[in-house]
Amino acid sequence: MLRFPALPLAVSLGDPAGIGPEVIAKCWDNRDAFGLPPFVAIGDPRSVTAVWDGPIATIDDPREADSAFDVGLPLIQLSSADGDLPGHPTVAGAHCSLDSLELAVGLARSGSVAALVTGPVSKDQLYGIGFAHPGQTEFVAERCGVAPGNVAMMLAGPTLRTVPVTTHLPLSEVAGALSTALIEARGRSALRGLQRNFGIPEPRLAVSGLNPHAGENGKLGKEEAEIIAPAIAALAAEGWRITGPHPADTMFHATARAKYDAALCMYHDQALIPLKALHFEDGVNITLGLPIVRTAPDHGTAFDIAGQDRADPRAMAAALRMAAACAVQRQTHDR
Amino acid sequence: MLRFPALPLAVSLGDPAGIGPEVIAKCWDNRDAFGLPPFVAIGDPRSVTAVWDGPIATIDDPREADSAFDVGLPLIQLSSADGDLPGHPTVAGAHCSLDSLELAVGLARSGSVAALVTGPVSKDQLYGIGFAHPGQTEFVAERCGVAPGNVAMMLAGPTLRTVPVTTHLPLSEVAGALSTALIEARGRSALRGLQRNFGIPEPRLAVSGLNPHAGENGKLGKEEAEIIAPAIAALAAEGWRITGPHPADTMFHATARAKYDAALCMYHDQALIPLKALHFEDGVNITLGLPIVRTAPDHGTAFDIAGQDRADPRAMAAALRMAAACAVQRQTHDR
Repeated sequence: MLRFPALPLAVSLGDPAGIGPEVIAKCWDNRDAFGLPPFVAIGDPRSVTAVWDGPIATIDDPREADSAFDVGLPLIQLSSADGDLPGHPTVAGAHCSLDSLELAVGLARSGSVAALVTGPVSKDQLYGIGFAHPGQTEFVAERCGVAPGNVAMMLAGPTLRTVPVTTHLPLSEVAGALSTALIEARGRSALRGLQRNFGIPEPRLAVSGLNPHAGENGKLGKEEAEIIAPAIAALAAEGWRITGPHPADTMFHATARAKYDAALCMYHDQALIPLKALHFEDGVNITLGLPIVRTAPDHGTAFDIAGQDRADPRAMAAALRMAAACAVQRQTHDR
Repeated sequence: MLRFPALPLAVSLGDPAGIGPEVIAKCWDNRDAFGLPPFVAIGDPRSVTAVWDGPIATIDDPREADSAFDVGLPLIQLSSADGDLPGHPTVAGAHCSLDSLELAVGLARSGSVAALVTGPVSKDQLYGIGFAHPGQTEFVAERCGVAPGNVAMMLAGPTLRTVPVTTHLPLSEVAGALSTALIEARGRSALRGLQRNFGIPEPRLAVSGLNPHAGENGKLGKEEAEIIAPAIAALAAEGWRITGPHPADTMFHATARAKYDAALCMYHDQALIPLKALHFEDGVNITLGLPIVRTAPDHGTAFDIAGQDRADPRAMAAALRMAAACAVQRQTHDR
């Protein structure tokens, strides 16, 4: 199997005042140690030079990235109206982060790059300029012509992959938002995503319960019997390898993790607590159900530490490596 | 400081058909390797001999435990009407587990033993014989004359301690069950428990949010601002070292854990998922707020593997060690 895809990756810098530019530049610095494939950054070069004094190789076409990668950080240039200062987000910076995302998605959609990696944006800033999607994932889905309900967010670390059925909802709204159809759709996305992106021919999915002890036979909640179990039965009837509903607290130790390829979780923290407890430094967010490969580091803009040379590039490096591996995998799977 | 308390520990065998007798016997087998203090088991000896062929030293008084401990597993004998078969719980066995708990609590209350360790019982079986408490913790609290609301369950492993504010509730009822007074009471129990049982003079408590991203400034829920933050402010005003509300998903990686002595969590799985992901084999349940020391291994009866020599004694060993350490600590603290 190929180690790297034939084409470079595109990585959007994210908010120019966040840590995106810094972690991407540090990834280029450590490209050999991190085992990274050629990639091209997209954004305002001033956001990089503000936090990094390495060489930038400005290019116009991703086809130049491969040779430029040995010379400097390949970058397709976008300008914001003002140069943003690290840690001080602006409206112009929000526009720049959106332009960068838009161009990077377009390159991935057109097949000019092997995969899309997105740097962290500020949702608050984006909402301020009229961005109407909950986050980058939904924006990318729309640009790819996929309904948001048909994509799934997977969080992946070296020993655990989780897929939350619901995401950014108050906890009190989670139970009401669950339905058998939604769990089934997310489960199917997770299973197909494991086949297509990770090359697992017969993936195993473990489904969590919603309540303590997975409801303890109805004594601590009825969602397991009424909503979750029927979804599991439906997917099992399609031939998928699927188990559950499992008590969430006993799903994530090493012996339990060895029994499945991904855990389908009912809500945000059920999926994110174990992932970040085990893999805080190198957790990757990968969007399943898209025609393109899209990954992102599992951290935010971290405005509070931007520009202080304190940002840890390992999650971005993991996102770049996973994007490359998934792109190679898809070349094989989709052939 | 003394390594072991002056008196032995009392450990109830739990349900005779569960794995309690097996793990306790295995702890005696490995008493030196596990670094265990003298303890006396309380229950039906037939439940031990059914799964273990080591020597039992039947005694009538805990004062004999110390010398008996070198000869065999010290055991104060209770009989169930029938000998229970491992994996096949009965009504008689449920009565026996309750009698064993009652006697063990009494020994601890009277100062005849240094601490109480409880083996796993079956709540279903106990409910069947009219047991009216939610679990052993509430029973022990009542026998100690403490209102159930004033005790707190702490789950403790080598690198993490968590205290859930609410426990065995359907997830949909968690938000409604939270109040500032309850969070304050649990937080105070946790902080005092860290002082009294763990010898931490100025304990640090990190409080989780309820919602994803701790509510993200109210966009994903208002409980953080309206219910949790006021409890934190009240405890801080009393001089306690307390922080939060923190996003639950970023509280449990190694760097974050180093910043607090215990995490106060809003619901069962928020506390139990990280604890068991990190410390599945040696998690201990310790009840805070009691006049006695009470610990328990963080696992159940496991009827499905009882009698197969497959039960892992490490959690019971950790519960015995922690009970001894807390008893020694209290001798110092309460002097």
